[in-house]
Amino acid sequence: SSNIRLAVIPGDGIGIEVVTEGLKVLEAAGVKVEATQYDLGAKRYHATGETLPDPVLDELRGFDAILLGAVGDPSVPPGVLERDLLLKLRFQLDHYVNLRPVKLFPGVETPLGKVLPGDIDMIVVREGTEGPYAGAGGVLRKGTPQEIATQDSVNTAHGVERVVRYAFAKAASRERQKLTLVHKTNVLTFAGDLWQRTVNRVAEEFPQVATDYCHVDAASMFFVSQPQRFDVIVTDNLFGDILTDIGAAIAGGIGLAASGNVNPDRTAPSMFEPVHGSAPDIAGQHKADPTATILSVAMLLDHLGFAEASARVEQAVADDLVERQGAWVARRTREIGDDIAARVAG
Amino acid sequence: SSNIRLAVIPGDGIGIEVVTEGLKVLEAAGVKVEATQYDLGAKRYHATGETLPDPVLDELRGFDAILLGAVGDPSVPPGVLERDLLLKLRFQLDHYVNLRPVKLFPGVETPLGKVLPGDIDMIVVREGTEGPYAGAGGVLRKGTPQEIATQDSVNTAHGVERVVRYAFAKAASRERQKLTLVHKTNVLTFAGDLWQRTVNRVAEEFPQVATDYCHVDAASMFFVSQPQRFDVIVTDNLFGDILTDIGAAIAGGIGLAASGNVNPDRTAPSMFEPVHGSAPDIAGQHKADPTATILSVAMLLDHLGFAEASARVEQAVADDLVERQGAWVARRTREIGDDIAARVAG
Ligand SMILES: CC(C)[C@H](C(=O)O)[C@@H](O)C(=O)O
Ligand SMILES: CC(C)[C@H](C(=O)O)[C@@H](O)C(=O)O
Repeated sequence: SSNIRLAVIPGDGIGIEVVTEGLKVLEAAGVKVEATQYDLGAKRYHATGETLPDPVLDELRGFDAILLGAVGDPSVPPGVLERDLLLKLRFQLDHYVNLRPVKLFPGVETPLGKVLPGDIDMIVVREGTEGPYAGAGGVLRKGTPQEIATQDSVNTAHGVERVVRYAFAKAASRERQKLTLVHKTNVLTFAGDLWQRTVNRVAEEFPQVATDYCHVDAASMFFVSQPQRFDVIVTDNLFGDILTDIGAAIAGGIGLAASGNVNPDRTAPSMFEPVHGSAPDIAGQHKADPTATILSVAMLLDHLGFAEASARVEQAVADDLVERQGAWVARRTREIGDDIAARVAG
Repeated sequence: SSNIRLAVIPGDGIGIEVVTEGLKVLEAAGVKVEATQYDLGAKRYHATGETLPDPVLDELRGFDAILLGAVGDPSVPPGVLERDLLLKLRFQLDHYVNLRPVKLFPGVETPLGKVLPGDIDMIVVREGTEGPYAGAGGVLRKGTPQEIATQDSVNTAHGVERVVRYAFAKAASRERQKLTLVHKTNVLTFAGDLWQRTVNRVAEEFPQVATDYCHVDAASMFFVSQPQRFDVIVTDNLFGDILTDIGAAIAGGIGLAASGNVNPDRTAPSMFEPVHGSAPDIAGQHKADPTATILSVAMLLDHLGFAEASARVEQAVADDLVERQGAWVARRTREIGDDIAARVAG
């Protein structure tokens, strides 16, 4: 088959290190890749003031997929790179599904004392293009005792329905066929009602999927006390942000959490990235775990139709994690990448 | 000293059972209490359609404090009792501090495998009267493909400053003297900026308190992976709702989580309640753990100036929990109340 045309945004800090290993494994998978690097992130911001210039965004639209490391640096005012680069990509490329598996691999230590690998195996389908992330809101009388700051969550039938439909299809394809809506319908009544009505309506098209509902506070508790409860979760942008970080914590840490910012309609390339940030405190020390990026590469392969190569990468990670277990000698970033790449190559 | 004039709202389900035990322990503490029961909750709603009639609300204003069990029942449309009773009380009585200790008592089992009691000892100061709970927002073109539902978080300088100031004072009174602001300033920029600026400003009045900041997603993760990190947390209404349920999970479950809806200016009575709900599934089975309510009673006593009695109740709970450890015979709700009351009475 033809080459994957891949845009690579290493970003800042450990982003650069982990992306190197991700690309190494992608190559080992035997899929032909034509990679183009983009220097977006803190360096470019300082040099030119640019975060994501329009011509670059237009170029990115031409790729099959994007692999992103991590963006953010203490030298940049907080939020600038997150909003004007990362979230701008998600919104402009219509990544309405933010797909985040939460899976405890055998051999991985979890902070939960009594949980076994099979107990944690879910996928969070987080909405990616609206809700509290819309950027709506404002401030009045700033800096005075009469200041008022609002922050508006925007939820549309269009936006909610498409992500809910995706989540149902995902649930239907899994063994347990269970979908849980997580929201806060008893307090956020306008948005919650739209989400609940949408789930109820789409459920009729998926009679094989069992649906239930959980308030976000209870769901957060259950992630810790009964993660077995969940198979596929569909939720809004902010609740999904919080839940998937708890998910990362219970499934062995942020070094293993992969994600895909997916445009299922393929009107623009999807983007794959580890859930972790740029971790400036350990950047350049070869300490970063590239596994989350490598698992994101597996998601990328799957999205582009290379199911066999994707499965091979995921299996290589699984095998590596089992072997890593109990090994008290820490491997460097590059060694982990080498080991997994070797397994993938076979 | 004079009697405590206490309004008691047992509510629904296990609320009734746990409040009985809370009152038993309050009596055992030797503080004179004049209790008046209010039948608010599902029964009254079904009988009269009322949730919190204005004359009742006015009467409640006359008490020294309120003890609430839990409200909510599947027979009532979801959200009605939560909004028109529970949240109405919090808002109308200006309970701007929702105080939620997260403390792992010795003898209590936590789902976190490697955590010891001293590792979890924090207080979440959750804002209680604004933010995403304001009820602001709306819906347009409901039920059509063009529907849009908004949900607005309303944050005022007045509302943020008073809760932040309370949190600083609380942190200053504790050994570690550490305050962490939890928000999502990189995405919720208008509200986040108001919270961060307020913390920065009030911090100048509390030079002895070390302050830091944590995004809500990272904080949720740290509750699981590094709860030692936190001493006092100040956060908005919704983030506090989520964090304190994770807190309940890591500190031994919802059966132990106490809370105070506090009006620090004492312009209206404060209200104390367990964090758990009415749990209709186990109501009437004598299975509910009244400990959360009893710890809420300890908070109530402390709020009203009975520091010694409050400490005695908390110590009795602590001793009971140590003894309970490893005891495989489950006690009934009433037995737990009896045991703790006996210890308090000494
Ligand atoms: C960096 C930040 C804007 C982002 C988010 O909130 O979505 C991150 O936390 C994530 O989960 O990918
Ligand atoms: C019942 C609900 C409205 C309430 C809240 O969201 O505050 C509850 O979850 C709590 O934490 O006391």
